[in-house]
Formats: sequence, structure tokens, C-alpha cells
Amino acid sequence: MGTVGQGVLRLLGHNAEEITRRVGTSVVVTDVAVRDPARARDCDLSGIRVWDDAVRLVREADVDVVVELIGGKTVAREVILAAIARGKPVVTANKALLAEDGNAIFEAARMAGVVVAFEAAVAGGIPIIKAIREGLAGNVIASVAGIINGTCNYILTQMAEKGESFEDALATAQRLGYAEADPHFDVGGIDAAHKLAILAAIAFGMPLAYGEVAVEGITHVTPEDIKIAQVFGYRIKLLAIAKRHGAAVELRVHPTLIPDDTVLAKVDGVLNAVVVHGNAVGQVGFYGRGAGGDATASAVVADVIDVARALVTDSRHVVPALAFQPDALRPLPVLPIRAVESAFYLRLRVADEPGVLSQLTAILAAHDISIEAILQREPRGGDDATVALITSVIPEHRFDDALAEMQRLPFVRAGSARFRVEKFD
Amino acid sequence: MGTVGQGVLRLLGHNAEEITRRVGTSVVVTDVAVRDPARARDCDLSGIRVWDDAVRLVREADVDVVVELIGGKTVAREVILAAIARGKPVVTANKALLAEDGNAIFEAARMAGVVVAFEAAVAGGIPIIKAIREGLAGNVIASVAGIINGTCNYILTQMAEKGESFEDALATAQRLGYAEADPHFDVGGIDAAHKLAILAAIAFGMPLAYGEVAVEGITHVTPEDIKIAQVFGYRIKLLAIAKRHGAAVELRVHPTLIPDDTVLAKVDGVLNAVVVHGNAVGQVGFYGRGAGGDATASAVVADVIDVARALVTDSRHVVPALAFQPDALRPLPVLPIRAVESAFYLRLRVADEPGVLSQLTAILAAHDISIEAILQREPRGGDDATVALITSVIPEHRFDDALAEMQRLPFVRAGSARFRVEKFD
Repeated sequence: MGTVGQGVLRLLGHNAEEITRRVGTSVVVTDVAVRDPARARDCDLSGIRVWDDAVRLVREADVDVVVELIGGKTVAREVILAAIARGKPVVTANKALLAEDGNAIFEAARMAGVVVAFEAAVAGGIPIIKAIREGLAGNVIASVAGIINGTCNYILTQMAEKGESFEDALATAQRLGYAEADPHFDVGGIDAAHKLAILAAIAFGMPLAYGEVAVEGITHVTPEDIKIAQVFGYRIKLLAIAKRHGAAVELRVHPTLIPDDTVLAKVDGVLNAVVVHGNAVGQVGFYGRGAGGDATASAVVADVIDVARALVTDSRHVVPALAFQPDALRPLPVLPIRAVESAFYLRLRVADEPGVLSQLTAILAAHDISIEAILQREPRGGDDATVALITSVIPEHRFDDALAEMQRLPFVRAGSARFRVEKFD
Repeated sequence: MGTVGQGVLRLLGHNAEEITRRVGTSVVVTDVAVRDPARARDCDLSGIRVWDDAVRLVREADVDVVVELIGGKTVAREVILAAIARGKPVVTANKALLAEDGNAIFEAARMAGVVVAFEAAVAGGIPIIKAIREGLAGNVIASVAGIINGTCNYILTQMAEKGESFEDALATAQRLGYAEADPHFDVGGIDAAHKLAILAAIAFGMPLAYGEVAVEGITHVTPEDIKIAQVFGYRIKLLAIAKRHGAAVELRVHPTLIPDDTVLAKVDGVLNAVVVHGNAVGQVGFYGRGAGGDATASAVVADVIDVARALVTDSRHVVPALAFQPDALRPLPVLPIRAVESAFYLRLRVADEPGVLSQLTAILAAHDISIEAILQREPRGGDDATVALITSVIPEHRFDDALAEMQRLPFVRAGSARFRVEKFD
């Protein structure tokens, strides 16, 4: 019942109706373990049995799935092994434990015929485990490279954008909750190395080899190097790299200069990104929130849904064709395009005469449309000028009404253009 | 046996060993149907039974999975329905057929208890169906927006980068095989609308509603609008957008201005990208090759592997924990970091005296290291100058040897920095 645990509980409650439609049965939290039952939490525990001993919960509670979000390597290992011993599927976000002891844990799970799912262990809400393990399963994978520690990426972004020193950027990250009080695991590259060991195993079909990852953290990156790198056309990011090299592999985590015109270089702040190179698909990239209670809970709940779908169906029909159970599909009214809201780009060809702009803007104002940006260009060659503008977000019918009115003005020529303006990331 | 079919056959052959390790059994193509058996093909059909009637193949051949890559809506539908009638799982890339007739096809499949898999129908090699249907299944999805037609994105990119007209960019795309002789399906937005209908169904739990997608193509986008949009700080892309709007949804495909500092705006050429917004995960983005025989084959084979894994195992153990079957994991030697090759960034603090650069570059040359970029800065305040450079790609030990030699020079001060330089997208 830490940050991620509370996130999972909230998510399973808040999205319960859709999750039931996807799974075909409801997914209910019946038992939780907490270290301190008296502590206040940002989630509703009513109707849930609260244990103060996680291992006892797993040994005794009547549950179908165990979700381990304790972290660390002692109690968490006991919990997972106890669940496996009872034949209970396990969902965990514990990258450190899996990277270091995963070979033994997965072997125990295999012997017991139990699933141990761990989408949340790498890159938070980005479904990268599923993508590599299933979505790209037809490929021989040549490399996986990623920004998979949000703390480091936040610090390096701050240093690049504000010119701050490592120490100052770290202090900011700590203040905002993006870095732990003891930041060594993150800024030393260890957390990224844990995740890289997991990615390499599923990409290359090798056992987890955390101990062989070459690790260099970001504590010695200076604003000066970031600035010089920019002059050369690069950004400095902490990259985790797993790459085939003949019959061997490279496993390394280190600050890396990457060209500033690549997508990876644009991934700033606490975001994570992973780029996979497969021999059929070429490069495929994934980006999103790599940490935080809700993003990590998204991955945990995806695993819970996988397990639940498998428990209530036969192997051929684990995932319904259209994601939701067929009898749970519901027709939704599709909004007529006239009612859709967006910002609009408008370009008009107008006669080059006085009063044009004031009449155009008066019409927009009369329809309660604000102008976010405007550009007027003098005539080139002919006698027509160009006016282009971007509006505020408005329903399309309002824009069209205003446009029709503008087009009736004597000085507006044929040949206007209108496109919608959207922002999705 | 068109472009994608040949890609699938090559991929299943070329990656056979790894695919067997992932599935736990081999996946073999035993029968193919071709329109013209005499035509030369870029794949090896030896040992494969060749039919000239796809429907007969499906009705009579002794196969476990049917892969439909015919395209179109007549024979393809017959093939899929025949496979369903025989209880054979189907893998298809046919977005037009699914978008328009998917409700009936999925209902027939459900009644027969047969899987119809279609990862390849949307965004080629990007595993976006799996991501939304499984990886983000814990989220209530608010919107899906994407660049999902590579032809349009290539044309718009050409227009933006070269200032070409739509007609000229289309002609280039046709010459390079990125556009069909009859480009209407692509440039008219219809292909993107087909894919959007599929994405909306799995995101929102609604039946396929292709007929209700508002569609506007790119034929009327001009270089002038692209240029003005750039002045405003935007790129013009053909976006497909599915968005919740209260109890309704918006489904629309149209040229769209998007801010040029977003990741989506950087997705150029034939690449595809999809951004999903979930209520737990926030924004998650995916990009990669959206078309082409090999990228689409990657998605087809992923579906074949899903089906094969389900056929040979029980529902709880469809996907092995580490992607490959436990007894197929193989330890791989990890290359010592000294032997890893990369380019290097080096910054040295040096005394401000003559001959410094020539001695440094002589050492690099003696170690057979080329310099890709170099920068020398005059002293500021103190009496030390800064030299920074980027090398060619070399084994780390060679760089370290050269660095050690440089650091022994009397004019080189303490406080150097070295970082690796990589490019992954």
C-alpha cells in the first residue's frame, strides 16, 4: 500500500466497469497488507481485509492473484515465493528483485506452473515487456536502447534547460518527489541497469545477467559538457543499451551523447523512452511516463487483467477480438463533425485595401472566436494579400458560420484554406 | 504471396530458430495460395504446396493457422469465413475488410470459437493493437491519435522539406513505391479511416463504425499553408483522431496542424506514430514503420506466434516469463566494456600554449582514431583552455589508451570528461 499499491487500488475501483467489460468478470481487491495499519492513505480500504503481515496474507488469504508492490529484496522475495508455492499467479513491479534473483524466481514459478508477470518493472506505463515479448516476437532483436530512469532524465533535462549543476538539479528533483532522499540507486545508474537486464533477457533469450551490466551514472555530468554537446548537435541522456555483437552481447548504462534531431533526444523530463531494433520491423519506439503511482499502476493492472482473462477463459480466447467481451461492446454515438471542437487554421486571399483586418476580426469577435496567432503578408506579384490565423478552440459549426460570413465580404477572394489544429503530446 | 506474404514466408524461414525458441514448437508454412503460380517471387517455395485457389486451400489443406494477406473484400472475406467455418484461427492484415465488415466477421468467429488476429491491420510493425487491447487495458482511454498512413506522411514530409506541390510529391512517392498508381485510398484519407475505426473499437469498446468517420484527405494541402504553419510553429500531418466527448465519441481523419516541438511532429517520411491517452498512464506514444513487406510481416508473425503459443500450451502459460521457452534460454557472453565500440566525446582542460592541438591530434592519429568534430575554447578567467572533440567509432580500449597517453602530456590539466556517443533512431 505504498504509492503504486494505492494507485492500483484506486485504478481497479475507478475503472471497474470498463475492466469488467474487458475481462468478462470483475476484478476485486479483497485483501491488502500494510506495514502500518494506522497510517492515513489516499484510497478507500472499506470492505477490504487489511493484514500487517504480507507473507501471512499470501499463505492464508483466499485470493486468485497476488500483487507484490513492496519493493526491496527480502519480504518481497518471501511473498513471491509463498505465492508460487500456493500456485497463485503473481504480478510484481520489483525490478531489483527480478534483475538480481529472477532466474531462480522464474524457475520456481515454472516448476509450480505459476505465472509471474512484471510489465510494471520496466518503463512504468509503457507496455514494453509485452511489446518485446509478444508484439515483436517475430523479430531477431538486434538492440534495445532506452531512457529508462525518469530521475536521471529529469535531472539531465533541468541541467540542459536551466544550466543548473548536477547538485542543484538533484535538489530540485528531490523537492518535487522525482528523486529519493538517497538518490544513489537512480543517479548511479543501478535502477536502469536492473531494467536493462530484464529487457536484454526477453530480447535475446538469455538468462538475467544484471551482474554483467557495465554501469556509469550521471553524477559527473557537468553543465559545461551539456553545453559543448549542444554545440556539436547532441543531447546528453542516460541510456541503457543492450546490443548484439556477433555471438556476444553488450550490456551498458552510461551518459550518452545522442543527436539532437532524433526522437529519443526529445524525450525530456521524467518521461521514459525505449527504441527497439528488430530484423523485420526495423526501429520501433515507445515513450511515456516511466514512473509515478498511476503510470506504474496502469502496467500492474494490465498484468492483473492478463492473468484474470487467462483464469476465466481457455487459451485460445484469452483476449477478445475487439478488446472488450463481445457482449460488452456498446454502440457509442459519433459526434457529427460540425459539433467537434478544435482550434482552426484559416488562410484567406484578400484584396490589398484598408479595413480588411478590422472587418475580418470583427466577424470573428461577433462569433466569440479568439485569435491565437495571425500573419498578414503583402501581395507578391498579383494584387492579393494573404491573411492567415489560428483561432481558439471552438465548435466547428461556429467556425464555419464565421467563415461563410467572411467569404461573403467583397474583398475576400476565392481560394481559402482551413485546417484543424490539435496537440496530442 | 504478395509483398507482405513473401515477407512473412521469408521471416518465418529466416528467424525460424528464434521463433521455435519463443513458441516451443516450430512454425512451418505448408501451403500457400497464389493468383499466378508461374510468377517469379522473392522467396523460397520449395517443400510448400502451392494452390491457385485460396478458398479451396482453406477448405482442404491440413493446416493449424490461416494467414489472409490477399487484401480486398471479396476473396479475402471468403477465405476468412471458410477458415472460421473449419475452426481454424485466422491472422489477417486486411484493415478495409475488418473496418467495414469486422462486426459480422468477429461475430462469426465468436460463434465458432475461433481467433481472428489483426495486429498487422493498423500501423504495420508497431504493436499498437496489442498495446491498447492488453498493455493499456487497465485504462479508460480518452483518446487515440495517430499518423497511420505512411503514404500521406511521406507526401506531406516531402512538401515540407522540399517545398514541393502535392502533385509533385505524390509523383515521387509513386516512383519510390510509397504510393499506389491509384492513390485515392491513401491520399483521400480512407485507409487511415479504416484503421481509425479499428483503433476506436478496441479503445472504447464500441462496434466498428467506419461509416461514421469524418474523412478529409490531403489533396488540397498546399506548400503555402505548410510554410505559413511553420511560421506559426506547426507542422501539417494527416491525423486520425478518436476521442471521447462526454457520452459520445469523435472519429475524424484530416490534415492537422500540430505544434512542431511535439514528438508526433518529428515523425517524418513513411513512419507511423500513435499517441494514446489513458486515465492512468497519461500519454503513451508509439512510432515505427507503418508499411512495407517486412514491417507488416513482423506484425503478422507476432500474431502467428500468439496463436501458436496458445495452441501448444494452456491458457495460464501462453507467454513464457522471459519471452523464450525456459529450456531455450541460452547464456550469452557479455562483451567486456573495454571491447565495446562507440564514438567518444572527450573534453580536456589544457594550458593555453602553442602546439597543444597538434600534439593531441598526433596521439589520436597514432591510435588510428579519426576526429569527427572538434571545438577549442579560449581561456575564460583562468589560464586553461578547453578542447572538446568527438571521435569516430572505435573500441573503448583504444580510446582509453589514447586518453591515458594524452593525460601524460605536461600541458593537460586534471578534470577531463569522456562520454560515449550513440545514435538509435
